[in-house]
Amino acid sequence: MAEIKLNIDALHDLLEVVFPQIAGQIQVVSLEPMFVRTRLAITESNLRPGGTVSGPTMFTLADVSAYIAVLSMVGNKPLCVTTSCGMDFMRKPAAGADLTCETRVLKLGRALAVMDCLIFSEGKPEPVARANMTYAIPPSKAEGV
Amino acid sequence: MAEIKLNIDALHDLLEVVFPQIAGQIQVVSLEPMFVRTRLAITESNLRPGGTVSGPTMFTLADVSAYIAVLSMVGNKPLCVTTSCGMDFMRKPAAGADLTCETRVLKLGRALAVMDCLIFSEGKPEPVARANMTYAIPPSKAEGV
Amino acid sequence: MAEIKLNIDALHDLLEVVFPQIAGQIQVVSLEPMFVRTRLAITESNLRPGGTVSGPTMFTLADVSAYIAVLSMVGNKPLCVTTSCGMDFMRKPAAGADLTCETRVLKLGRALAVMDCLIFSEGKPEPVARANMTYAIPPSKAEGV
Amino acid sequence: MAEIKLNIDALHDLLEVVFPQIAGQIQVVSLEPMFVRTRLAITESNLRPGGTVSGPTMFTLADVSAYIAVLSMVGNKPLCVTTSCGMDFMRKPAAGADLTCETRVLKLGRALAVMDCLIFSEGKPEPVARANMTYAIPPSKAEGV
Repeated sequence: MAEIKLNIDALHDLLEVVFPQIAGQIQVVSLEPMFVRTRLAITESNLRPGGTVSGPTMFTLADVSAYIAVLSMVGNKPLCVTTSCGMDFMRKPAAGADLTCETRVLKLGRALAVMDCLIFSEGKPEPVARANMTYAIPPSKAEGV
Repeated sequence: MAEIKLNIDALHDLLEVVFPQIAGQIQVVSLEPMFVRTRLAITESNLRPGGTVSGPTMFTLADVSAYIAVLSMVGNKPLCVTTSCGMDFMRKPAAGADLTCETRVLKLGRALAVMDCLIFSEGKPEPVARANMTYAIPPSKAEGV
Repeated sequence: MAEIKLNIDALHDLLEVVFPQIAGQIQVVSLEPMFVRTRLAITESNLRPGGTVSGPTMFTLADVSAYIAVLSMVGNKPLCVTTSCGMDFMRKPAAGADLTCETRVLKLGRALAVMDCLIFSEGKPEPVARANMTYAIPPSKAEGV
Repeated sequence: MAEIKLNIDALHDLLEVVFPQIAGQIQVVSLEPMFVRTRLAITESNLRPGGTVSGPTMFTLADVSAYIAVLSMVGNKPLCVTTSCGMDFMRKPAAGADLTCETRVLKLGRALAVMDCLIFSEGKPEPVARANMTYAIPPSKAEGV
């Protein structure tokens, strides 16, 4: 029913324009209608003393993944913005492991989309964090020619 | 009653060690018991297309500010970590203006601290975002003498 | 600038219609533009074993107080509905004490309003819970003549 | 690995003691390790004008369901209490339909448990609300033999 409007390549191109700061760090691994799996390559700059991944790094992954999930379904509307979010940091991610994030679109309304994210440290079965992200979708006229 | 255990200079020194990625970007402007005001200098790397400040930038400000607020009250326990948080992004920050953040400690327990943050775009009276941040405080023995 | 559109009597009348289940239990104590103080009379039905106030009781107080705060500012739009919320339960309320709730409107937009609530157990200076509540405001045409 | 410590009958018995206000309204439908499905029978007292289910009703269902999920795994520790939560209300539930709630335990730590809930209006495939609930688990000694 609900169809993907932007494929993985189109999403990667968009990320480079909208989030150049993290371009290349976050990749779309797989994409289904209302679901996306992403991966964040962890580098030194994402770590905190004690060898754990920083909170802002995990927030960035959840936020960008939710953005990707929305845009995959609504198409090229780069001005979608986060309106609210919540996160629980449940386990300490391994310092040397990349993070993967599974994002599910729970609601795709005209004006608001609600997503749930589970973040995993590669190689461990239990999630290290969960997030809920709400995005506002601009009306179509606002972004067109 | 509750007394400040780390002053502004000590907090700045700690930030450079714990969050070297944002060292210098976030400054403590003023400090009272259970309250801290911080400032984030906005640069190109914090912006999104359309000239607004990115969500991860605002999250980082709230997260680091809450960390500063906790440590100012519990002393040198750098292994305090975020356990949960929530944010509402309410207004578009001005692209050229720095952000300030007012963080209030609502609860300072033995194991958990709860903070509320209001983020302002300098020069505007209404907050651009609100956040709640919960930090876990490690037991004293865990961090050595 | 922003003016109160419904006074305390009008809000009490509205509560009896919209939330008859809690009519009489929750009272508006004082009202200012963008701020309301409410009180919940605690009865046996609000308690849990161990003599503490139940979570749903505190949620109800925050939710209804936020509803009152919105309606005081936008006028008679009973179809305002909660779209998202978050709460931290920070201290055990005293079993025999009423609860008071201070609600501040942080954003009053055309479509969404964002509120912060602090809940106190009467006689104690520190808040027992905090909440953030977002309400959707229906367009004016949607509610009849 | 993780085993159920209280079965459905034991959980129903416990609910009558701990939440007598909603006894009989909320039933455990099915139970697996780290997962529970519950049902709330909607009555007039759960409705708001316009024929929708009230926010406090949905919060109560999520809160009690999370409590059931925790206790099913940790055993008879009735003093488990909610420490934080978040909810998104995504769709209007049907007025005449019961609600079901699927609760998954994402983390079962010694001191904290984190749950995700999806609430459905019976007969509709899409969730009407999502919630995250964190419970504090008291140490074993605190609750006696």
